[in-house]
Amino acid sequence: MADDKKKTNEANAMWGGRFASSPAALMEAINASIDFDKRLADQDIRGSLAHSDMLAAQGIIGAADRDAIHAGLAEVRKDIEAGTFTFSTALEDIHMNVEQRLKEIAGEPAGRLHTARSRNDQVAVDVRLWVREAHDRAIEQITGLMRALVALAEHNTDTVMPGFTHLQSAQPVTFGHHLLAYVEMLGRDRSRFRDSRRRLNESPLGAAALAGTSFAIDRHATAKALGFDGPTRNSLDSVSDRDFILEYLSAASICAMHLSRFAEEIVLWMTAQFGFVRLSDRWTTGSSIMPQKKNPDAAELVRGKTGRVYGALFSLLTVMKGLPLTYSKDMQEDKEQLFDAADTLELVLAATTGMVEDLEAVPERMSAAAGAGFSTATDLADWLVRSLNMPFRDAHHVTGRLVAEAERRGVGLEDLPIDAFQTVEPGITSDIYAVLGVQNSVRSRKSFGGTAPDQVATQIAWWKDHL
Amino acid sequence: MADDKKKTNEANAMWGGRFASSPAALMEAINASIDFDKRLADQDIRGSLAHSDMLAAQGIIGAADRDAIHAGLAEVRKDIEAGTFTFSTALEDIHMNVEQRLKEIAGEPAGRLHTARSRNDQVAVDVRLWVREAHDRAIEQITGLMRALVALAEHNTDTVMPGFTHLQSAQPVTFGHHLLAYVEMLGRDRSRFRDSRRRLNESPLGAAALAGTSFAIDRHATAKALGFDGPTRNSLDSVSDRDFILEYLSAASICAMHLSRFAEEIVLWMTAQFGFVRLSDRWTTGSSIMPQKKNPDAAELVRGKTGRVYGALFSLLTVMKGLPLTYSKDMQEDKEQLFDAADTLELVLAATTGMVEDLEAVPERMSAAAGAGFSTATDLADWLVRSLNMPFRDAHHVTGRLVAEAERRGVGLEDLPIDAFQTVEPGITSDIYAVLGVQNSVRSRKSFGGTAPDQVATQIAWWKDHL
Amino acid sequence: MADDKKKTNEANAMWGGRFASSPAALMEAINASIDFDKRLADQDIRGSLAHSDMLAAQGIIGAADRDAIHAGLAEVRKDIEAGTFTFSTALEDIHMNVEQRLKEIAGEPAGRLHTARSRNDQVAVDVRLWVREAHDRAIEQITGLMRALVALAEHNTDTVMPGFTHLQSAQPVTFGHHLLAYVEMLGRDRSRFRDSRRRLNESPLGAAALAGTSFAIDRHATAKALGFDGPTRNSLDSVSDRDFILEYLSAASICAMHLSRFAEEIVLWMTAQFGFVRLSDRWTTGSSIMPQKKNPDAAELVRGKTGRVYGALFSLLTVMKGLPLTYSKDMQEDKEQLFDAADTLELVLAATTGMVEDLEAVPERMSAAAGAGFSTATDLADWLVRSLNMPFRDAHHVTGRLVAEAERRGVGLEDLPIDAFQTVEPGITSDIYAVLGVQNSVRSRKSFGGTAPDQVATQIAWWKDHL
Amino acid sequence: MADDKKKTNEANAMWGGRFASSPAALMEAINASIDFDKRLADQDIRGSLAHSDMLAAQGIIGAADRDAIHAGLAEVRKDIEAGTFTFSTALEDIHMNVEQRLKEIAGEPAGRLHTARSRNDQVAVDVRLWVREAHDRAIEQITGLMRALVALAEHNTDTVMPGFTHLQSAQPVTFGHHLLAYVEMLGRDRSRFRDSRRRLNESPLGAAALAGTSFAIDRHATAKALGFDGPTRNSLDSVSDRDFILEYLSAASICAMHLSRFAEEIVLWMTAQFGFVRLSDRWTTGSSIMPQKKNPDAAELVRGKTGRVYGALFSLLTVMKGLPLTYSKDMQEDKEQLFDAADTLELVLAATTGMVEDLEAVPERMSAAAGAGFSTATDLADWLVRSLNMPFRDAHHVTGRLVAEAERRGVGLEDLPIDAFQTVEPGITSDIYAVLGVQNSVRSRKSFGGTAPDQVATQIAWWKDHL
Repeated sequence: MADDKKKTNEANAMWGGRFASSPAALMEAINASIDFDKRLADQDIRGSLAHSDMLAAQGIIGAADRDAIHAGLAEVRKDIEAGTFTFSTALEDIHMNVEQRLKEIAGEPAGRLHTARSRNDQVAVDVRLWVREAHDRAIEQITGLMRALVALAEHNTDTVMPGFTHLQSAQPVTFGHHLLAYVEMLGRDRSRFRDSRRRLNESPLGAAALAGTSFAIDRHATAKALGFDGPTRNSLDSVSDRDFILEYLSAASICAMHLSRFAEEIVLWMTAQFGFVRLSDRWTTGSSIMPQKKNPDAAELVRGKTGRVYGALFSLLTVMKGLPLTYSKDMQEDKEQLFDAADTLELVLAATTGMVEDLEAVPERMSAAAGAGFSTATDLADWLVRSLNMPFRDAHHVTGRLVAEAERRGVGLEDLPIDAFQTVEPGITSDIYAVLGVQNSVRSRKSFGGTAPDQVATQIAWWKDHL
Repeated sequence: MADDKKKTNEANAMWGGRFASSPAALMEAINASIDFDKRLADQDIRGSLAHSDMLAAQGIIGAADRDAIHAGLAEVRKDIEAGTFTFSTALEDIHMNVEQRLKEIAGEPAGRLHTARSRNDQVAVDVRLWVREAHDRAIEQITGLMRALVALAEHNTDTVMPGFTHLQSAQPVTFGHHLLAYVEMLGRDRSRFRDSRRRLNESPLGAAALAGTSFAIDRHATAKALGFDGPTRNSLDSVSDRDFILEYLSAASICAMHLSRFAEEIVLWMTAQFGFVRLSDRWTTGSSIMPQKKNPDAAELVRGKTGRVYGALFSLLTVMKGLPLTYSKDMQEDKEQLFDAADTLELVLAATTGMVEDLEAVPERMSAAAGAGFSTATDLADWLVRSLNMPFRDAHHVTGRLVAEAERRGVGLEDLPIDAFQTVEPGITSDIYAVLGVQNSVRSRKSFGGTAPDQVATQIAWWKDHL
Repeated sequence: MADDKKKTNEANAMWGGRFASSPAALMEAINASIDFDKRLADQDIRGSLAHSDMLAAQGIIGAADRDAIHAGLAEVRKDIEAGTFTFSTALEDIHMNVEQRLKEIAGEPAGRLHTARSRNDQVAVDVRLWVREAHDRAIEQITGLMRALVALAEHNTDTVMPGFTHLQSAQPVTFGHHLLAYVEMLGRDRSRFRDSRRRLNESPLGAAALAGTSFAIDRHATAKALGFDGPTRNSLDSVSDRDFILEYLSAASICAMHLSRFAEEIVLWMTAQFGFVRLSDRWTTGSSIMPQKKNPDAAELVRGKTGRVYGALFSLLTVMKGLPLTYSKDMQEDKEQLFDAADTLELVLAATTGMVEDLEAVPERMSAAAGAGFSTATDLADWLVRSLNMPFRDAHHVTGRLVAEAERRGVGLEDLPIDAFQTVEPGITSDIYAVLGVQNSVRSRKSFGGTAPDQVATQIAWWKDHL
Repeated sequence: MADDKKKTNEANAMWGGRFASSPAALMEAINASIDFDKRLADQDIRGSLAHSDMLAAQGIIGAADRDAIHAGLAEVRKDIEAGTFTFSTALEDIHMNVEQRLKEIAGEPAGRLHTARSRNDQVAVDVRLWVREAHDRAIEQITGLMRALVALAEHNTDTVMPGFTHLQSAQPVTFGHHLLAYVEMLGRDRSRFRDSRRRLNESPLGAAALAGTSFAIDRHATAKALGFDGPTRNSLDSVSDRDFILEYLSAASICAMHLSRFAEEIVLWMTAQFGFVRLSDRWTTGSSIMPQKKNPDAAELVRGKTGRVYGALFSLLTVMKGLPLTYSKDMQEDKEQLFDAADTLELVLAATTGMVEDLEAVPERMSAAAGAGFSTATDLADWLVRSLNMPFRDAHHVTGRLVAEAERRGVGLEDLPIDAFQTVEPGITSDIYAVLGVQNSVRSRKSFGGTAPDQVATQIAWWKDHL
């Protein structure tokens, strides 16, 4: 949709206007992609630079033509960067817009730029470059978020909080340990983007319309110039598949899902009922008359925008389902979904990083919650197994009776006198107290990856080495 | 996202720039909705007019205040229509933008407009009105498309084509009959939008923040003024549900699915291999050097854009899943999905209508395809059942033998001599020829809703009465 | 997939076995539907009874044939009900299984049953009947759940709880009012199923393979016999559309979304931190050693199973996208998604109803939470507007100062002495106390649909009239 | 759902029965997973063998206990393999079913197996193993399909067919080249599964309930015994994430999308109108009376089942969205989606492989279609650029005039006399004929990855080295 067109539509839309019904207007609205594919301007110019270099090197065009093309493209780029370039809907897409302007600047040589190339492989290489850079941005942002989480974890290796299952307190854990769980998830997200980037890094340039070309081009040269590992191996596939976008959207969806879980926790922790964390006004909004209200808007939007990324993935999966080879116009639907999902992912990663940097634990609220509800009953049972060689199931039975006794007395397990323990199980000694209490519980879980502060510190050290 | 912000982002995005990382910029990007909710300006003003009228009628504000508000809003509307209104991101959303400007124009009375109202019920009523109008547009456009299909069907009640199952020719049908199948689908789509419109037509205005208000407002009056059937019955529900948008998106998805099936058929029919229809250049694109190429771009995009509508539905279903009452910021994600899906639906309905108006059948190609492959074998079998009282399964057996004989001779069933029929089944008389041949076959299927031209004409007449 | 086959697969699957690779086994696995479409047995038999009645009435088959068919089908039904019917994969689907058995019982007349009918319209009518009945079950179950919610609301018209926005306490509301919000949502869900049921209630029987038939059938008669409002109007549409299933799945998805919101609230309310409700052991699971743990498994699964219903909708939307008319084998994928979604919806509706019947509010926890955090600040502001004719925005400013004062003193607004009020705003009188305190706040919101107990009682009465 | 329960439900379902409404029956239906998680029996036993070995090696249990456990598990496995194991719903899941039976066999030592383990890490390791094996199966099957495609391509390096864009013939290509496009897609699919497998290959065993354990376990030892690369680094993450399933489902969705494109092509190619390929009866179904009908059922179901895989992905993405850590019951929804998607993927991969092995090209139909419509016009334009040094855009103009002349004469470009060429452009020599004609066209596209037979042969050789 062209700029002018867009304005008209926006105006119409604002007042409930109807879609213009002339065939020409409709076809333009359907066909023109310049309104969104202008985001590919940089990639398009880089592709043309590499292509014309190669054409000259192969003797397909002359050096003078190449130079005129390069000088012209430099000027086009300057115009676009300065915001003085006029994008035209009549020219449909970014490729024709750039080419037309180049012709105005460079004259006849511009007509030679399209030798041994088609819009089909041109757009394929543009999008491939854009997606590759979106991967790079995602990888960098995820790394930044991981660093922020590790830093916060480092301040909270000893901060005890309830470990929840079913949102019911199950066993005490440390807040640092909890944060590191997200570092693990994000580490896999990052690794997923890295694999995807590696897989897509092949150049479709030279596939031409769909069948390759009879010109003696050097696809390895253009691939290298554009930072690809090499050229794609099949020209039909090169102009008709979009799996590299789908893989990006899949990785983005999984990453957005992870962020939505953390966002949900922030929303919960910020309630008056939990009160586990504080966020400054930078990430919350308030009410002029209800000062206690701290609406966690940023967290809510991180959570909500998950739907947007999922939606982009399912849009494109739907578009591609059952399309015969090679290019069909349906595929033009790929770009807006991609751009929107990438913008969204970058926004939620940045917002989450900002919140983590701002987040402050409220240890007294966390700790009080961690100690409630006999949360160290498992520790007691494990002690019975370990110290008295009791089978696991029997230990459970004894523990159940002791908890019932503590409940009857209205005290925690750690406050039961030793004779109360021994009445239920004579083998219990006062060593038992060493495993009761949330601090003891947490400290005892030293298995690899467990919640004991020294384990958490070990994992923090590992990540600091790997970030 | 504010206008300025948006420009920056677009510039950044164009050159692969990074998302601005200052908390303030991020929160603005997350929070501000004016960039898209300005499409609600008209609805917002209408809501305020109705609300202030009611406040005055109830004596909650004075008549002079009401008049000042009305005059001011008229001016705001004029500014917006003229394109001279300056939308500000700092004011976040359409409600604050309009209110602020009103204050500049009308002074103190503007401060009374928000009495007994909250942004929560204000946005709820705005969106409700917008969605209702989107329903109205969809209903009108679908009706237009149905009319175009009926008109084309009327010219093709006798045009024979193959009826396909599994994309294999099964029995001859008429093109008019085929087109009417889509009229039926669209008729249900229209009925779906009508039901949905009726269901949503309740006014949330007066729900206030979430709990109702202590002012003596008259919700029935504002509901009536805004064309609603009445007020909603529960204030919490009024500010926290979005099922009326989801129902719109569901109906739009099903309708888009129907259009995608028709679009697929156009793409197939336009191939050199089928050649069943012609479309003018208004709906296709060509190649300067391959004059035979008629790329059915419009049909392909109608098919492809299905993914976009599905995506919007799934985005919002995801957003709403598991959200506790009442309003959460996640719900701000509803509007962009809604607007994009509505724009898309309107575009594909308009394009499909245009194509139908332009579409020309190629009867000779259709008819030749319809007659190939013993497509009247079922008619022969039915004749045996009907005329010789043969059980259905036996009739099938006899027909199989006759088809084999025709195949052996390399002729159609209608060209088999009578003795060839009688060799296989002595009871067959020359009456058999009346059911063979595609014209006879088609004419014989007179059951209600069948493909016989007079049946098709009956259905056309019915629809002309109902459109 | 046949029973035998299924067993083999299950065994293989259990041990990581590979999919059998013989073409015959694969085609059977792909083609045979008896493993799931046997759920259509009742519908299939009813369709055959109606069809044969009509054939006899029209003189297409004899009365004796009809009687033999009816007697035979009665026997088939008895076998199936008794669990003694042997379903065979070799016979592929429910239609052939029933027909084959009928032939064994009734002999030659069985061969006449299929006159003027095809498997295409046969399966269409079977599925249509099944979906209609699924609608009826959903409507009945939703009504039951609404009744349960109304009953619980009736016990809680005065139970005060915090009304949340952003999961932050905003204004006090009543628990009854909160529950009625779900009654409204479910009321729309029910209305959606009713509309959908009405729309689908047309009989495809008589569409035959796709083109109608040359037999003089009476489609109105079979439609009436099967409880349809009439026959469908286009035979091609009748065998190739699935929008009635998609509409069921859409309505089910929206309903599941509503239930997921309530389930999320139960999970939250059951936490130690909220403690707003109690659920008995019937709907929770515990731990043998952690007696305080009440895992809200049922609520979690109601929430989680939303994904399953959404998935079915998206599956079928994908399947139908871009399919040319009429029947394609792809459509066989409709049934398993439909059955699974219907089973899931029925399960979550039943479980939610059970939880509501079991749910017990903890008023002291709710009330304490409702009163915290100056939640009646809005009431104070509204009083200033109403009693002192202060513009809304000024009233907000005054309220902000008073809240700050109360916060400084560490008391609630209702505990501020009158002179403290008057220091900030001299116009305030002791009438102000009548609007402070959560009980007063709640009682004051008497606008239609508001949270005041008498409003809630009015809405309860309305619903009791309409359920 | 238990076996008995299931039978009741199936019977009910078949006759439209209502869901049993007793709380106990509902909770069982919601909670019990044995009906589907029994597919994890093998993985569960292997996990227990490794765990008990480690416990003994660490001195946590005695060697005799370990031996008793191993002997008992061997017996359990034998029972399950023999089909004599009785799965009980009362015991809820596979873990309790196996443990209970082990207790009957082995007595007291069985009670020690669960030391330092919880059902949370137990199910995590079971599913992880199952998913890893699903990856292995997918990789193997994809490789098999790639081999079949390469073999078919090898027989068709010279078979000319139309290269389509917009389903309009654009340039001639070879069938071998077309098939290799799918080899590329599948190669990326395989690479995706390999990356995913590598990423998931960490052992969660030892994470215990969620926090790790105080027993001195050796997680590296169990990881190694089960073929993992090492233990996971965070116990909370280990029991609460499901991204490894989501990544499998993403890769499966993209692969299913690729297969759906090929399936669509088979459906098209099998039409009377295209007639490009033949499939034997093994992969098609016919009609007893329409012998020409070859319904491509297998291809249609491959296409249709795409929706099923997408649906599973979307289901689980929905389930996981916004879930707080660690385990919530919602996650139990992962297994059925996973199993169904894996079964579906394996089925469609096997069916597609079978079809490829069976597929026979019809070169005369392909070739005739390839030559129609001036499909070598691009070759002519390229010749002008290359031989006459004409700028690309001018060459297009000249070509357009020549095509118009050929069209006027009703001949192909290759049949235009040389003077006709020279009338339009005097520089053209008789060398021009070397690039016209589909064979010449195809042979000329020798750029890397192009459609020239020797390029195709090169790529086939490359793949044979890499498969």
